[in-house]
Amino acid sequence: MLHFVNDYSEGCCKQILDRLIETNWQPESGYGFDSFTASARERIRAAIGNPSADVFFLVGGTQTNKVVIDSLLLPYEGVLAASSGHVALHEAGAIEHSGHKVLPIAQKEGKITAAAIEAYVKDFYADPTYPHMVHPGMVYISHPTEYGTLYTKAELAALSEVCRAHSLPLYLDGARLGYALATPESDVSLRDIAALTDAFYIGGTKVGALMGEAVVFVKGAPKGFFTRVKQNGALLAKGRLLGLQFDTLFTDDLYIRLGENGIRTARRLREIFRAHGYRFLIDSPTNQTFVILDNETVKRLSERVRFDYWEKYDEGHTVVRFCTSFATSMEAVEALDALI
Amino acid sequence: MLHFVNDYSEGCCKQILDRLIETNWQPESGYGFDSFTASARERIRAAIGNPSADVFFLVGGTQTNKVVIDSLLLPYEGVLAASSGHVALHEAGAIEHSGHKVLPIAQKEGKITAAAIEAYVKDFYADPTYPHMVHPGMVYISHPTEYGTLYTKAELAALSEVCRAHSLPLYLDGARLGYALATPESDVSLRDIAALTDAFYIGGTKVGALMGEAVVFVKGAPKGFFTRVKQNGALLAKGRLLGLQFDTLFTDDLYIRLGENGIRTARRLREIFRAHGYRFLIDSPTNQTFVILDNETVKRLSERVRFDYWEKYDEGHTVVRFCTSFATSMEAVEALDALI
Amino acid sequence: MLHFVNDYSEGCCKQILDRLIETNWQPESGYGFDSFTASARERIRAAIGNPSADVFFLVGGTQTNKVVIDSLLLPYEGVLAASSGHVALHEAGAIEHSGHKVLPIAQKEGKITAAAIEAYVKDFYADPTYPHMVHPGMVYISHPTEYGTLYTKAELAALSEVCRAHSLPLYLDGARLGYALATPESDVSLRDIAALTDAFYIGGTKVGALMGEAVVFVKGAPKGFFTRVKQNGALLAKGRLLGLQFDTLFTDDLYIRLGENGIRTARRLREIFRAHGYRFLIDSPTNQTFVILDNETVKRLSERVRFDYWEKYDEGHTVVRFCTSFATSMEAVEALDALI
Amino acid sequence: MLHFVNDYSEGCCKQILDRLIETNWQPESGYGFDSFTASARERIRAAIGNPSADVFFLVGGTQTNKVVIDSLLLPYEGVLAASSGHVALHEAGAIEHSGHKVLPIAQKEGKITAAAIEAYVKDFYADPTYPHMVHPGMVYISHPTEYGTLYTKAELAALSEVCRAHSLPLYLDGARLGYALATPESDVSLRDIAALTDAFYIGGTKVGALMGEAVVFVKGAPKGFFTRVKQNGALLAKGRLLGLQFDTLFTDDLYIRLGENGIRTARRLREIFRAHGYRFLIDSPTNQTFVILDNETVKRLSERVRFDYWEKYDEGHTVVRFCTSFATSMEAVEALDALI
Repeated sequence: MLHFVNDYSEGCCKQILDRLIETNWQPESGYGFDSFTASARERIRAAIGNPSADVFFLVGGTQTNKVVIDSLLLPYEGVLAASSGHVALHEAGAIEHSGHKVLPIAQKEGKITAAAIEAYVKDFYADPTYPHMVHPGMVYISHPTEYGTLYTKAELAALSEVCRAHSLPLYLDGARLGYALATPESDVSLRDIAALTDAFYIGGTKVGALMGEAVVFVKGAPKGFFTRVKQNGALLAKGRLLGLQFDTLFTDDLYIRLGENGIRTARRLREIFRAHGYRFLIDSPTNQTFVILDNETVKRLSERVRFDYWEKYDEGHTVVRFCTSFATSMEAVEALDALI
Repeated sequence: MLHFVNDYSEGCCKQILDRLIETNWQPESGYGFDSFTASARERIRAAIGNPSADVFFLVGGTQTNKVVIDSLLLPYEGVLAASSGHVALHEAGAIEHSGHKVLPIAQKEGKITAAAIEAYVKDFYADPTYPHMVHPGMVYISHPTEYGTLYTKAELAALSEVCRAHSLPLYLDGARLGYALATPESDVSLRDIAALTDAFYIGGTKVGALMGEAVVFVKGAPKGFFTRVKQNGALLAKGRLLGLQFDTLFTDDLYIRLGENGIRTARRLREIFRAHGYRFLIDSPTNQTFVILDNETVKRLSERVRFDYWEKYDEGHTVVRFCTSFATSMEAVEALDALI
Repeated sequence: MLHFVNDYSEGCCKQILDRLIETNWQPESGYGFDSFTASARERIRAAIGNPSADVFFLVGGTQTNKVVIDSLLLPYEGVLAASSGHVALHEAGAIEHSGHKVLPIAQKEGKITAAAIEAYVKDFYADPTYPHMVHPGMVYISHPTEYGTLYTKAELAALSEVCRAHSLPLYLDGARLGYALATPESDVSLRDIAALTDAFYIGGTKVGALMGEAVVFVKGAPKGFFTRVKQNGALLAKGRLLGLQFDTLFTDDLYIRLGENGIRTARRLREIFRAHGYRFLIDSPTNQTFVILDNETVKRLSERVRFDYWEKYDEGHTVVRFCTSFATSMEAVEALDALI
Repeated sequence: MLHFVNDYSEGCCKQILDRLIETNWQPESGYGFDSFTASARERIRAAIGNPSADVFFLVGGTQTNKVVIDSLLLPYEGVLAASSGHVALHEAGAIEHSGHKVLPIAQKEGKITAAAIEAYVKDFYADPTYPHMVHPGMVYISHPTEYGTLYTKAELAALSEVCRAHSLPLYLDGARLGYALATPESDVSLRDIAALTDAFYIGGTKVGALMGEAVVFVKGAPKGFFTRVKQNGALLAKGRLLGLQFDTLFTDDLYIRLGENGIRTARRLREIFRAHGYRFLIDSPTNQTFVILDNETVKRLSERVRFDYWEKYDEGHTVVRFCTSFATSMEAVEALDALI
């Protein structure tokens, strides 16, 4: 069986596993007051070029979005997000569970524009009944998006500008950030993200860690953030696990190198599909590939390959997602070529 | 430096580490639909003698308490708990954050009694203004308690009876359950707990796992529990990590054996303190020891040993906590003897 | 100045005022345990032909929607509603504040269809990731809608059927229900509503009461509803005020008669606009009229008449809302004729 | 039947009723943008001697406490309150429903001390685990308390000082404030309250209004307070009703005069009980009287008089509450004398 179903099927990268073994019996303080976390925090500050940024380590993506968004909003404020955004659709209402409305913005291939944010805010305050409505309080974007697409530096800068003009914190969900940073076509660096957003998270779970996301507050964390994390049930007792993993990921550019493996294998995979005459739903440059297959091929392939059903295309065709990752071998991709 | 500061200072037990290494590259489905989780669930069902119990795996204790308690209560119901209970004091208001009041019950050495629950419920419904008050909706106990003490089987049975009489689900927080089960003086088995409660969790974080708690709903889980977990940001993408650890802990009684190490070292530690003439705040039979030290000794010891400040005893004395664990070596305990 | 700005500009109808004066000094029990509330409850049960319905009296519409919807949903469930619905747009996120997502359904003139509900539910459960998403838990409709339109009995029956098929409680917001019931073109009676929904509220605030909405749970109230009301800060100490008003409104068909005044004046108002050659945004049969005026006329009229800005129509035209009510006199409408 | 059961049994004072009649047909804007509300706001500002205070009008006491407290706290903060405080006991968990813990402070006759607050805060920050606990975020007091007692100006000043020293907003629940202000023994004026607290509410419901409480934010309201009120379902459409009532109450010292009636009748009532040899549970100077009756008398009186059961005193005696109000006539009190 070949596995392209998602980017969190395996355990972790070799380097993290090695360090887990090596440090297992070293006693450390709990709750993130360990030496690994301190080191990871410094490495991330160095990587983003911002020595005063606040960095916290949480366990998972939905958890991170929930705690961060709730911390950045007042109770009557909502978060502007692409209608296809993870917070809008696939977090079981975690944002609403903390009292906030997700205010959907029309998207194209998972992306939203500065113009759409500008229009939303303008229309909102032009409506005399706005005090009776959820106020726009911040903007959420994902990079890569849920469709694997990327913002350009210019697009990000435009979003940043409109957000600052309206005092809306801009928050970037980087669940798959490693793949974005490793994409040759992308002109957006980690430092750009740190310069253009107010907060973002560097995803570990989908880029080679056992679990973990590093939240960065570029201009300082919301008041009492540690206690907010605890109150949300999101504080890991053995915070050392998160610190150690990010300390490893940010040593010798490992995070980028893991991303590169996902990108390299995805590019080859797309070449193969293209060579076989298949088309794509979206021209995604990152590690997710949305290919349109005839139903016969879907059925035949699924006996030998695990991939993800995405949506019906037409009566005879289906969109399926092939996902590569830090763990995908080029051999597996070539083996797929033989099966198509 | 000797370490007795808590039971979550090290990574994990050797057996779990070995299996993490061994299974790291095996692809598995996410969100708890992996083969390890399926196996762990069956092993726990077998261990508690209840093949139809619902078993879920969460990451941490506060998270587990928050999600379980919210799932067992209606919005206007509160949870009865010892005033010293973890949910009452040390979870940063996680229960209130989900809308519920913790209704404190007077405790002795961390334990509450069936009689106190009975009196609370009787008084509550005798008050004609009760519809204007938070209704008692369930009972929370911890075993071992926050003071390291244990319920007897008779006490647990009495609590169970009063809870059933008033339709209050009884929920047991087993953050350190392994140490309870390994305590020779205790007459409470895992099967007893499954027979006498409605829900409980088997703590992994403090008993040899990297992280993880196994929640058991003896009579079936609350409706939509999976989605509730997700909505709380508590669903681990690589659920395999939790499954694998509990699968290991429930193979060849490892969970009990890890607990036994904590108990054995704690007993020796108490012998040593007793031999040196020290007294204890509480006569705890499990892995936490609350010893009364003169301030001079506290100061002197803390240069060579890490332990936990608990509370001031009197002007010249302090209560400190020494905690042993699955990872404590008898050598460390004997080394402590030499230092006292 | 003529007033057509909304239907809650004046105090209350004469009959209610008279009874307030008459009963002012009569001592009564608090919190809805007074004799007026008991009588009002019985009158409403008689009016809907359901002697076992549970009836509660709350103060306002948003409050009622918030408490009722939260009571009918599990925490991970959302409410399906027209994207133009009051709960979706104009309640400042009250529903999200209680933890639930409003799941928007495409609407036409404020109405949603049984087919759209059916499609939503079918698509939802067909998506294999649905356990990670907010579950559809109930359906909210308003009658009249926010655009003044009405469901036909057939449309309501179809909605009822699809809701029952999927175990989704159907809840009807009747903020302006009196105007619906008094509309000659409508074939929907109060008994129809009671037969086809699970819960609904009879609006008092906009139909002649000082304030107050009567919530009817056709099949019995959610458990602990009284305490839920209290917990939401929605329990009126002098519940007598709400009871007395609804007791009066449901004596001698006063509620319908008040509605009829709003309808009669609205019809005449539309005749006048039509006679002057104006068109309407929507063909609303109830007490709200959405007329398209050239900007010059808007400006001129607003010096003598208060009405509501609705939206821009095109560069030269604006949609404005004229609202009649229980309190609108035919003289005022005729006076408007002279001004147009 | 004589009525001493509470202070919200009747409708409203004559002056309010007259103005309701007089203004009923005058069209006004909704949601508090009416002329009465504007006038009431100015009158209250004048009465407290603070022209820049923010004043809002809400419907009821629990609602007011819930919205104000949630607005003054960060999510991980709790409110310090007497263990007997209304928010701690009799609001069905409204505070917890908005996510905050009520942190109980030991009380005496319903009052808490500056020293107790100081000790709480000191102990809290001295505990090294405090980041894992609910932070003290504000202080709630009631004046009169739930036992009818009053703070002295010196006590209030001491509370104010400790609150300011620790940046804890001090909030005063004045549900029965009119009776406090009318108590001759009290040295606390409305201006004192405005000078010594950060926020307080002036209770209308129990002092002669149909309903309504005036919230005063001495140093300006929390951001977006109007929308928070709406989001909580607490915004009254016909805000004119609240404005009109407080405009009337703050004309010609009516609010104080209504309080004086409650005080005068309560004093006479206590004289009568004292003359008959009865003792009191608490020496309350305001409109609530807690008298210890033998059970025989309780039974006999309850056939002719409505009063409130408070608590069991001993086997043969019961504490009952007699409440006077703006509406109590001296004739009723004298009639009671004849019955005792």
